[in-house]
Amino acid sequence: MGAPLDLASAVAKSLVLSNLVGHDSHGIIRLMEYSGWVQSGNLIPNAYPKVEWTRESTSLIDGGWGWGQSASYLATETVIDSARKYGTATVVLSKTNHVGRLGEYVDLISKAGMMGIAFCNTGGPIVAPFGGVKRVLGTNPFAWSVPGSADFDYVLDFSTAVVAAGKIIMAGMSGESIQPGSLLDKAGKPSVNASDLADGGSLLAFGGHKGSGLSVLIDVAAGILSENMPAAISDSGFGNGTIFIAVDVSRFVSLDLFKSVASQFENIMHNAGEPNSVLLPGEFEYQTRCDREVNGISISSGIRENIEETAKRYGVSLSGLL
Amino acid sequence: MGAPLDLASAVAKSLVLSNLVGHDSHGIIRLMEYSGWVQSGNLIPNAYPKVEWTRESTSLIDGGWGWGQSASYLATETVIDSARKYGTATVVLSKTNHVGRLGEYVDLISKAGMMGIAFCNTGGPIVAPFGGVKRVLGTNPFAWSVPGSADFDYVLDFSTAVVAAGKIIMAGMSGESIQPGSLLDKAGKPSVNASDLADGGSLLAFGGHKGSGLSVLIDVAAGILSENMPAAISDSGFGNGTIFIAVDVSRFVSLDLFKSVASQFENIMHNAGEPNSVLLPGEFEYQTRCDREVNGISISSGIRENIEETAKRYGVSLSGLL
Repeated sequence: MGAPLDLASAVAKSLVLSNLVGHDSHGIIRLMEYSGWVQSGNLIPNAYPKVEWTRESTSLIDGGWGWGQSASYLATETVIDSARKYGTATVVLSKTNHVGRLGEYVDLISKAGMMGIAFCNTGGPIVAPFGGVKRVLGTNPFAWSVPGSADFDYVLDFSTAVVAAGKIIMAGMSGESIQPGSLLDKAGKPSVNASDLADGGSLLAFGGHKGSGLSVLIDVAAGILSENMPAAISDSGFGNGTIFIAVDVSRFVSLDLFKSVASQFENIMHNAGEPNSVLLPGEFEYQTRCDREVNGISISSGIRENIEETAKRYGVSLSGLL
Repeated sequence: MGAPLDLASAVAKSLVLSNLVGHDSHGIIRLMEYSGWVQSGNLIPNAYPKVEWTRESTSLIDGGWGWGQSASYLATETVIDSARKYGTATVVLSKTNHVGRLGEYVDLISKAGMMGIAFCNTGGPIVAPFGGVKRVLGTNPFAWSVPGSADFDYVLDFSTAVVAAGKIIMAGMSGESIQPGSLLDKAGKPSVNASDLADGGSLLAFGGHKGSGLSVLIDVAAGILSENMPAAISDSGFGNGTIFIAVDVSRFVSLDLFKSVASQFENIMHNAGEPNSVLLPGEFEYQTRCDREVNGISISSGIRENIEETAKRYGVSLSGLL
């Protein structure tokens, strides 16, 4: 697509990792979408992100409207370095395309012995605020991690929409109805008919006014500080304004103590229900990764066709790969 | 209760402010509960909080097991001062009693032109994690603010439990049933019978696995960094381990620009539904405050009796006050 090898490798690594941990919606199926953005000029494939400035424990990263994954890796490194020096740090990432899966970056922060928070606003309003009937908010995801037990860190990563737009669109294609409380039609009435989304309806935020409030804070904070602007105001309707925060655990307690208490807490959680009924945040991803590292990643026929079509567009031979 | 005038004034101001903005559950009704803690020795009424240490943009506040409100005011001042100097700051508050309404403190942070985040774990497990049937988590509240329009800042403040334990206990007293999805009985079955909570049942977290995940992160992060320990591990089952984070908006964009875009966003939100159907986070509190500053705060007979009983305990005359 015109990306130099190092940028292409970073994006490939990030997408495959999403498949590996079980989030196929954020995996290699995205290549086709990215290809469209490169062709439309929204994604500049050879743009390198750069640290625009660092002042004490704050930094601004300029993504140059390139690959969001490369920009996010730079933002993650920067926030970890600053938090090591100052105890805590905040990095704002501006002018970037789809950053991928936020959970990947906060996991890197917790692997560095820190608490990590990341959230971004998303281009194009599609979620109605609590009490409203029109699209105002993006799907605005939020991620939060802390060092966990020896096996895995606790990584929370969710969309503030009840369900991902992609899942509703796919349900609409196959004529399935969707769970009540996820969708309004274009008149603002509750709907379980997935095709109402494409017809001008709105997604709902998770958790009533609480989830809607989180989405509002993300749109305002990440939208304005990144100058991407909230989805409902942005002219471009494009890109992810993203904020990364890190806090060095060892300033307050030893990392060993933190992880030891976390393990104790993990046991209590596991005993709070039937076996395997209670998972820690990040545990599904850890279990899926363990399984897929041994057994490989199954690709649906839809994803396979998607990759084949993308490869054909660039004259790439997939023989021996699929 | 043995508090010096300055500490007593700070607590009184904080409690009345909660009544003023419409959160009577966090208002002067708490005096009776605090009095019990003073009598049991959990709350040391003349203990002053102190900044244990500050290293670059991180600080630890030792509440000395005194009043949570005074300790939180010190934590809020400290995090604002540090964020002014370093751009962003994190303050952990340890060894403190009930901090009151987190929204009050993040509102002070946004009034200083900053984004504020605060969350705390709460003593005594009462919430079952998603997928579980036993009490593991506290009601672990989360608050987040940014500078808003000219009228008010956007202040989100919620319990990660579906409903406050206090509301369920009050419903139980009056024999009311509660909304489905809020409660499990002691056998782990869904219940709408409020008395099942007192009988060993569990509250549920809001928003399914997402809200439950937020509660887990709060219990682990705030519980361990403050050394209060997660509710399910703490021996004392007491106090609020609290984390305050501030980010100086003016490092990234001018405060005027931030507030001007926020106002524009507020208008879009207000037009997303019927008049007064869509509120920004903090708008209910702003409206209630405007009303109560003019018309006064109505006190229910239950709160009145509560105050009278507390006053009698300390030989305080309320004549002319109630």
